[in-house]
Amino acid sequence: MASPLIEPVARLIEAFARLPGIGPKTAQRLTYHLLRAPDAEARVLAAALVDVRDKVVFCDRCFNISDQPLCPICRDPGRDQTRLCVVEEPLDVLALERTSEFKGLYHVLHGAISPIDGIGPDRLKVRELLGRADEAKRGGEPFVEVILATNPTLEGEATAMYLAERLEDTVGLVSRIARGLPVGGDLEYADEVTLIRALQGRRAV
Amino acid sequence: MASPLIEPVARLIEAFARLPGIGPKTAQRLTYHLLRAPDAEARVLAAALVDVRDKVVFCDRCFNISDQPLCPICRDPGRDQTRLCVVEEPLDVLALERTSEFKGLYHVLHGAISPIDGIGPDRLKVRELLGRADEAKRGGEPFVEVILATNPTLEGEATAMYLAERLEDTVGLVSRIARGLPVGGDLEYADEVTLIRALQGRRAV
Repeated sequence: MASPLIEPVARLIEAFARLPGIGPKTAQRLTYHLLRAPDAEARVLAAALVDVRDKVVFCDRCFNISDQPLCPICRDPGRDQTRLCVVEEPLDVLALERTSEFKGLYHVLHGAISPIDGIGPDRLKVRELLGRADEAKRGGEPFVEVILATNPTLEGEATAMYLAERLEDTVGLVSRIARGLPVGGDLEYADEVTLIRALQGRRAV
Repeated sequence: MASPLIEPVARLIEAFARLPGIGPKTAQRLTYHLLRAPDAEARVLAAALVDVRDKVVFCDRCFNISDQPLCPICRDPGRDQTRLCVVEEPLDVLALERTSEFKGLYHVLHGAISPIDGIGPDRLKVRELLGRADEAKRGGEPFVEVILATNPTLEGEATAMYLAERLEDTVGLVSRIARGLPVGGDLEYADEVTLIRALQGRRAV
């Protein structure tokens, strides 16, 4: 029996299925959608893919994504240069920026410490972070605050602990984002660890 | 505040988010994955996208996807030329081929009749299907059976009813795939319509 799956189609399904969170069924659906969609749709996506690799770099200073050696946030003189927020991924910068709550600078680690996966501090942008803190201190204007905004996971917590220890002598204050009940969440359904954190983090009202 | 989202990244997120079933969050995750993945991954996907549009056509006879004027199934002399299975989409051909149960030919309608969406028979490959049946009859070898394998949805059923009526004089037998409880399903949780169909379709054991 001849396979009904012709080669260019099989290749696109395979390429989609390699993406995280896209299973073989979804990859099939996407492929057949693009086969029937206006020609421009597939070509716009293809061009955007090539562009993103050709034109996007990581910021020399904070390692956020950028189209220039320095990212838009590092270039912006209006940002508070004395406060630094440390995150795991560029997506975390986006999420925090959407809140408009933080006006300082960022540092993207590109991951978290995970001994199980063989990821130590040397695989992350940790040396660069310590370098920034050091340089600021030697310049006479140490960071007023470094907020550790790694994820509230085992790896994120371990990374925060590690960084807190390494940073305590070079910056004014090392802080950690609060962990507790998510807004709109339900106490009844919260897991125990979150509840413990919520209790530990309680404040006078 | 400068936007932290640089233009090539925003464009790729947007292109992903236009795909069916891909929301803005998934589009972001895919984009950032490709930013950090080996360069080849994005380029392979981009090339596959262009290829699929450049090299894939619809079969002249059955409208399944193909890389030649006739698809691999229509080209295969080993297939039963007297039986035709009518489906809505090329993906349905794939699903049926995986079963190895059907050895005949296909006809892909590229949709189903849906008055609400303004899709009448003229928007589908219905004329071409009736033409194939007509031609086979005039050639002295009418189709022995045409299996209507459109989806068991309102639109699929309406399409099947419409086609059954139009085909009854030109083919030996018009049949409809069975509707009933899915294998591995649970009677207790089946919806009423499926249960009614399962009862109506009961067979002596």
